[in-house]
Amino acid sequence: MSPISALQRARAAYAPKLPGALKNGAAVAVAEGAATKSVADCDKIAALFPKTYGSPVLTFSPGENTAERSAINVGVILSGGQAPGGHNVIAGLFDGLKSLNPGNRLFGFLKGPDGLVRDEAVELTADSVDAYRNTGGFDMIGSGRTKLETPEQFALAEKHCKSRGISALVIIGGDDSNTNACVLAEYFKAHDSGIQVIGCPKTIDGDLKNEWIEASFGFDTACRVYSELIGNLCRDANSAKKYWHFVKLMGRSASHIALECALQTHPNAAIVSEEVAAEKQTLGEIVGKIASIVAARGNAGLNFGIVLVPEGLVEFIPDIKNVIAELNDLLAANAAEIEKLDALGKADFAAGKLSAASGATFKALPEGIRKQLCNDRDPHGNVQVSLIETEKMLAEMVGNRLKEMKAENAYKGKFATQTHFFGYEGRCAAPSNYDADYCYALGYNAAALIGAGRTGYMSSVRNTTKDAAEWIAGGIPITMMMNVERRHGVDKPVIRKALVELSGAPFRYFASVRDKWAIETDYVYPGPIQYFGPSEVCDQITKTLELEKK
Amino acid sequence: MSPISALQRARAAYAPKLPGALKNGAAVAVAEGAATKSVADCDKIAALFPKTYGSPVLTFSPGENTAERSAINVGVILSGGQAPGGHNVIAGLFDGLKSLNPGNRLFGFLKGPDGLVRDEAVELTADSVDAYRNTGGFDMIGSGRTKLETPEQFALAEKHCKSRGISALVIIGGDDSNTNACVLAEYFKAHDSGIQVIGCPKTIDGDLKNEWIEASFGFDTACRVYSELIGNLCRDANSAKKYWHFVKLMGRSASHIALECALQTHPNAAIVSEEVAAEKQTLGEIVGKIASIVAARGNAGLNFGIVLVPEGLVEFIPDIKNVIAELNDLLAANAAEIEKLDALGKADFAAGKLSAASGATFKALPEGIRKQLCNDRDPHGNVQVSLIETEKMLAEMVGNRLKEMKAENAYKGKFATQTHFFGYEGRCAAPSNYDADYCYALGYNAAALIGAGRTGYMSSVRNTTKDAAEWIAGGIPITMMMNVERRHGVDKPVIRKALVELSGAPFRYFASVRDKWAIETDYVYPGPIQYFGPSEVCDQITKTLELEKK
Repeated sequence: MSPISALQRARAAYAPKLPGALKNGAAVAVAEGAATKSVADCDKIAALFPKTYGSPVLTFSPGENTAERSAINVGVILSGGQAPGGHNVIAGLFDGLKSLNPGNRLFGFLKGPDGLVRDEAVELTADSVDAYRNTGGFDMIGSGRTKLETPEQFALAEKHCKSRGISALVIIGGDDSNTNACVLAEYFKAHDSGIQVIGCPKTIDGDLKNEWIEASFGFDTACRVYSELIGNLCRDANSAKKYWHFVKLMGRSASHIALECALQTHPNAAIVSEEVAAEKQTLGEIVGKIASIVAARGNAGLNFGIVLVPEGLVEFIPDIKNVIAELNDLLAANAAEIEKLDALGKADFAAGKLSAASGATFKALPEGIRKQLCNDRDPHGNVQVSLIETEKMLAEMVGNRLKEMKAENAYKGKFATQTHFFGYEGRCAAPSNYDADYCYALGYNAAALIGAGRTGYMSSVRNTTKDAAEWIAGGIPITMMMNVERRHGVDKPVIRKALVELSGAPFRYFASVRDKWAIETDYVYPGPIQYFGPSEVCDQITKTLELEKK
Repeated sequence: MSPISALQRARAAYAPKLPGALKNGAAVAVAEGAATKSVADCDKIAALFPKTYGSPVLTFSPGENTAERSAINVGVILSGGQAPGGHNVIAGLFDGLKSLNPGNRLFGFLKGPDGLVRDEAVELTADSVDAYRNTGGFDMIGSGRTKLETPEQFALAEKHCKSRGISALVIIGGDDSNTNACVLAEYFKAHDSGIQVIGCPKTIDGDLKNEWIEASFGFDTACRVYSELIGNLCRDANSAKKYWHFVKLMGRSASHIALECALQTHPNAAIVSEEVAAEKQTLGEIVGKIASIVAARGNAGLNFGIVLVPEGLVEFIPDIKNVIAELNDLLAANAAEIEKLDALGKADFAAGKLSAASGATFKALPEGIRKQLCNDRDPHGNVQVSLIETEKMLAEMVGNRLKEMKAENAYKGKFATQTHFFGYEGRCAAPSNYDADYCYALGYNAAALIGAGRTGYMSSVRNTTKDAAEWIAGGIPITMMMNVERRHGVDKPVIRKALVELSGAPFRYFASVRDKWAIETDYVYPGPIQYFGPSEVCDQITKTLELEKK
């Protein structure tokens, strides 16, 4: 156990808010909605999940813990990338379980789903939970990226749960982990193993949300950390008046983080990948747009600015996207041969095998980018978009464009750049009040779902733009959020990923003001997350949610 | 004017503390010490500063503003890189001047010393000052890196001050800017221009300090921002357990920032440039030390960690330092010829002209580093150490060393890295309570020095580890901090730069615990700067100062 900072010590005392429905503990009254359908591909999803498909939406109201409940053992797993608030989900789950029966016990599987497969777990006690309340990170039990998806894994999961007397599992993860939680729930039900499975929506990327899941936890805190830093860079740019800062932001495919940070800080440009895809913008067009903003400001004597770039951008540029899709297949099909080559060798190998159109696009990219596209793959076999230094590529290409514009007398400013990538800095920050509350409620609510005997559900706490007393707690059948998508050449049931909707209020607002932000210096400096002090400072919600719920 | 964030609005109300000596305003009673000497080269400094050399140290106590004082106009200049708290120096100066005579007026010269030379200034009013209280950045009046050092500039400065009726200048800057402030004070005195000059010690680097100047402002806040991020990375590393993060930290030559951040977060390794220089460590030895820590942790199953690298490191490695010194002369001497070449061309050109020893060292460096060393120079003509990606170089070289160790069965872990550079993110953060208070006091105290009719002094507020009532306010003759150093081939009087002292308490403490930190996972997570809440969280002082004053 690490030493404790002054802030961590003071913050440990924070008591997260709970929805009104949970005010009497996790023993709740349950209102069932009608039978549900998946968002698409209903027949296929129904066929894949015969035991769990169609379950009703559940809405909780305060209950009374009058029934005699036998004590149970529950397991919890942190799956995938870190997100602020994970420890509070566990704390809420622990407290919720104890409210049902003080004899209930909670086990944390170590290092993610691997812990379940390998039967590595620790019992979480009041002391161990207390030490991690309101802290960031997943270090309490660790996390991992192993996917729970094979029958062999499921059989081991069943075996290990049974040997520990565990009758319910809570899986805290993103869209894929929740999909797998549902597959596991179906497996357990089909095998009459009597083990419930509940999911909790985690990801800083913000792409696990829908009508029922208002936000994935961690998004609020991570965006606040990035916006703190972006605001500081804005202030630096506006003080020194000599640099353009190109800032790449984590967030995999979706641009929710880049959009939220833009709404918080008012940069001169922010690229939204979903718009790039919808408008079929080429890389050259994107570069041209940024260069025209730099030129307009430079011609007005403002040789500084801020550009936000979403991590997954290159995958959304149609011509680049085609290259990546071909590369994904190509490099997978030639894995053995590729393995032996160095980065440049891989790039040359790939260049020779791409289609004519993609080959031309590929060869036009800077060498550094070609190497990055071919060199490293993530455990899912995909191009590691986070390794592509898109921010440097854009800064360089914008600089080249500006030289051309200068030669044409269309630009008379100076252009010097600094580049940044903000990602790992925000995933393990101590949760904001929003995430501390929301996570605690999600965990506590997961205990209520367990107490209500449900499986294949995602813990749902919504209406979070209102006072906590008005938050709606309940459960959403995971199958309801699914459709069928092609992944690595195979049709799979998956939770539909929520990309930025161009017709949604957050993007529409951004689109209505960005031309002003581009030319004017309209920066906002949000500063660091505050845990004490005025509610208007400490209890802010994301601009995304504020606009969505307006 | 940018829109205002919720935090900025709430923070505007913060009333910074003032030293007891200033409790009755800037009209103070002045106690004079004996005549002073410079820290070295007394005869040379005395000869260069016949009018200001030898002035006494001044110590203030509360006075009474009984004397009739005629209203004066004062100018203020922000010089050099941004540091949190600059606006509060101006606010303190403004309030101090008004306490002397409500008719006193303050003018801000725009974009740094250039504003004085070009006579660009704005009058700072109560409204404009209020809008910037307790904010980060230098955007209120801008900053710049122009050096005030030629007689032509001084003549223009005199002319522009006189035309505006300005009888005192406050220059807020680092060691070079304060040196130049003193040269200007001497010039004004020698020319009987009747214009006073006062300096304020600014720099996040922490290298402007001595017996009389306890800290340069901005160091506290910047280190807290970096430590917040490093703590978040520590937590991420300890959660995912799969990455070594190599973090380069701003701070030019001195390693104060890296050392302070290490003391705040307990990384597995932190390099202190001054130790590297003292022990004449080669780059290979540094790489070997880090690799041995990675191996020890990896062999214990801990394939993650944090390494802090000071920005200026390469200049302190003796063999590399020689290369840079030769390059500085060589590239300056061949500027015209070099100008036309691209980065690799410059590197090749340089390689051919270096001494045999330096040429060998230079050629052994990765190509990317060789190009960076030759390509861009700062306005002072030096290698731009901040452009050298030392963190990536070390990560790569450690990886190579580990491969050798693996081949020798000395290492059996996994080594994956992420690299970061934290610099611009911290220079414009809103000041911590410490910096907000200290800066306001420095500015207010500068008004007291003006009121006391002094020139060539640096505003000094010390004993800041105690309650503000016990802080000691006064003035230190700038000549007292000077010695003669060779700069760009010329002997110059300069304020002696404060590097990390290996015999000082901060380094000695670090040295006593670092072996434990290397192997154990002993991270501390300081979290973001808090502006509200418990004093033990909000009013912390740097570990450096805490250890120095113990």
